[in-house]
Amino acid sequence: MNNFTFYSPTYFVFGKEAENRTGEMVKRFGGSKVLIHYGGGSVVRSGLLDRVKASLKSEGIDYTELGGVKPNPRSGLVYEGIDLCKKENVDMILAVGGGSTIDSSKAIAAGVLYDGDFWDFYCGKVIEEALPVGTILTIAAAGSEGSPDSVITREDDMMKRGATGDAIRPKFSILNPALTQTLPAFQTAAGITDIMAHLYERYLTNTKDVEVTDRLIEALLLTMKHEGPRVIKDPDDYEARANIMWAGMMAHNNSCGVGRSQDWNSHDIEHELSALYDCAHGAGLAVTMPAVFKYVMKHNIMRFAQVAVRVWGCSMDFEHPEVTALEGINAFSAFLTSLGMPSDFKGLGAKEEDIPVLVKNLCYGNGRDGKISGFVPLDTDDCTKIYQMMV
Amino acid sequence: MNNFTFYSPTYFVFGKEAENRTGEMVKRFGGSKVLIHYGGGSVVRSGLLDRVKASLKSEGIDYTELGGVKPNPRSGLVYEGIDLCKKENVDMILAVGGGSTIDSSKAIAAGVLYDGDFWDFYCGKVIEEALPVGTILTIAAAGSEGSPDSVITREDDMMKRGATGDAIRPKFSILNPALTQTLPAFQTAAGITDIMAHLYERYLTNTKDVEVTDRLIEALLLTMKHEGPRVIKDPDDYEARANIMWAGMMAHNNSCGVGRSQDWNSHDIEHELSALYDCAHGAGLAVTMPAVFKYVMKHNIMRFAQVAVRVWGCSMDFEHPEVTALEGINAFSAFLTSLGMPSDFKGLGAKEEDIPVLVKNLCYGNGRDGKISGFVPLDTDDCTKIYQMMV
Repeated sequence: MNNFTFYSPTYFVFGKEAENRTGEMVKRFGGSKVLIHYGGGSVVRSGLLDRVKASLKSEGIDYTELGGVKPNPRSGLVYEGIDLCKKENVDMILAVGGGSTIDSSKAIAAGVLYDGDFWDFYCGKVIEEALPVGTILTIAAAGSEGSPDSVITREDDMMKRGATGDAIRPKFSILNPALTQTLPAFQTAAGITDIMAHLYERYLTNTKDVEVTDRLIEALLLTMKHEGPRVIKDPDDYEARANIMWAGMMAHNNSCGVGRSQDWNSHDIEHELSALYDCAHGAGLAVTMPAVFKYVMKHNIMRFAQVAVRVWGCSMDFEHPEVTALEGINAFSAFLTSLGMPSDFKGLGAKEEDIPVLVKNLCYGNGRDGKISGFVPLDTDDCTKIYQMMV
Repeated sequence: MNNFTFYSPTYFVFGKEAENRTGEMVKRFGGSKVLIHYGGGSVVRSGLLDRVKASLKSEGIDYTELGGVKPNPRSGLVYEGIDLCKKENVDMILAVGGGSTIDSSKAIAAGVLYDGDFWDFYCGKVIEEALPVGTILTIAAAGSEGSPDSVITREDDMMKRGATGDAIRPKFSILNPALTQTLPAFQTAAGITDIMAHLYERYLTNTKDVEVTDRLIEALLLTMKHEGPRVIKDPDDYEARANIMWAGMMAHNNSCGVGRSQDWNSHDIEHELSALYDCAHGAGLAVTMPAVFKYVMKHNIMRFAQVAVRVWGCSMDFEHPEVTALEGINAFSAFLTSLGMPSDFKGLGAKEEDIPVLVKNLCYGNGRDGKISGFVPLDTDDCTKIYQMMV
């Protein structure tokens, strides 16, 4: 196991009607003037925004608001949010929404206290300070409610990149599984896929002897395998949504990823798809992961055989472990399809003729030197082949 | 799943030579004059205390020290520590040792800022404020390095009771698995037993539909099943110790126990044994748990069958699930014995004729009203029978 540090100081309030404790939480963490940041009309229509505002008012907390966050959140709105916070003397950002809204809130929080262009953080500069961020989560997916990470797309060139830093970990996150019951099935399934991707990205490691984190990752994958079909069958199944929501947080706060190298090639390869076609990140991952896994499988057959046996219930073929490994990848892919996820370029609206552009953006965009690194380093030739496998 | 809050803000520094970052951590969390609290001579003999002091000095941090913590830590030393901290204007407690030292440190930290008798906290009063506590862990067992809990024995009447509060959660914990390599095999095994007990106490729930936490608990039990024999076979196996150490923290910071009722009857029943006979807590648990589990098994046969199949690899007897449930308990008991743990009163130095005293202390001590509650409520008759099963 590698040396590591782990710090996850977010205060989680989980359960029914938890959003009514928003004011209490803002007060606990020192907010007096908050920016309520959100996406489209659903948080307005559902009455959630009104309940949040009522909770703030009951504690005498002032607020201003900025809606309009889109999936794959854009830099333009971040700049707008930074200006608004400075003008209004905002001292806390309150994200009401999913991963996109939280990531946009984190970018604003970091940008307000930074003299330069906030995009610097998305080119590798570590975020050292930021306004406190609180979240009210409306979809189990990105894990941004408990992570130090944020992903933003720059509008000039549709470059999608990530930033990180303990300063942008949410101070508190309010998780009410019932808030996710109104999501369309497709978005629920895309969220499940994203959660499972966060687990696989950590599972694909080159570090030896990491039984505890292997087992924890498998536990969360088994949870998704059990709860995913339940929630697609009955969107109002609160219990299934509750299990998925906690699993989604645990999948990405890194308690199951400590002390081991991680992959993240599937995320990088997918980011180019959602940047170019604006497809749902989870849907892009559903298409990307099986291709990547099949391409890199030979690097460590036993790792893929292990997850096949322990999670997907495959029988181990001791004479031909590669058969079991492939069977596990196919079982995962079939599982995602059964939830309603696409399995190829067509399902994403992606085009084969764009592959050269995708590969160029992936391997040379934002200062990269012709390859991406992870479980297996991949160059432009590898990435071209992987995209072609998705066609 | 029940509503819950979860807050685990401890900063963990994990790995080889992590103790050399003690000064940096004390500084990060605002300590300028620390009390170094420890147990016997092993931390002195091993040179650990010198390394810790050197790290403090390198950051210009002043310190005073108080050794002498015993297993099943006593109230007398806590009072001494509180007086010393007040006299020396200490602003942070640094625990160098295992669960006993950490628990004693937490009691001192709470007592320094409290006008009344610190024992009030061990009679149910919630700890609202305390000096910051940091830990340097030398045994994987109690999980106190990441928990808001402390257990102290009052010397007047040998009453062993627990206290809790977010204020006593360690601000930082330094976990170097190599520090545990010099432990005698018996202590290593007792630590493993304690970790598994923390998992079983959470597993035995009356809350339905808690797949995610069930799976996480099973993951950590499987880790202990895999790593326990490895570390007993080779005490210098750093990797096995590293996996056990992280599992020990995860087993008790409650990330796998949220949203579900928990048991803790085995802990309560054991505490009377270690209070009266001063046996190792883990050894007491090894004797207690199989008896308790067999006694309460009928309350939910399927729960015990589930852990038997998923953790202990038993084949499910679908016609007679009680056979599988019992097989799992016996497999767990045999596992603990294989690590070197005792299996009956004799192995603990406990005496059958003391059972009435044990039951009286357990069911009526410290304000209890003749029973203990948990997975199954147990009265004096039940507890008598359970102790008799251990003879």
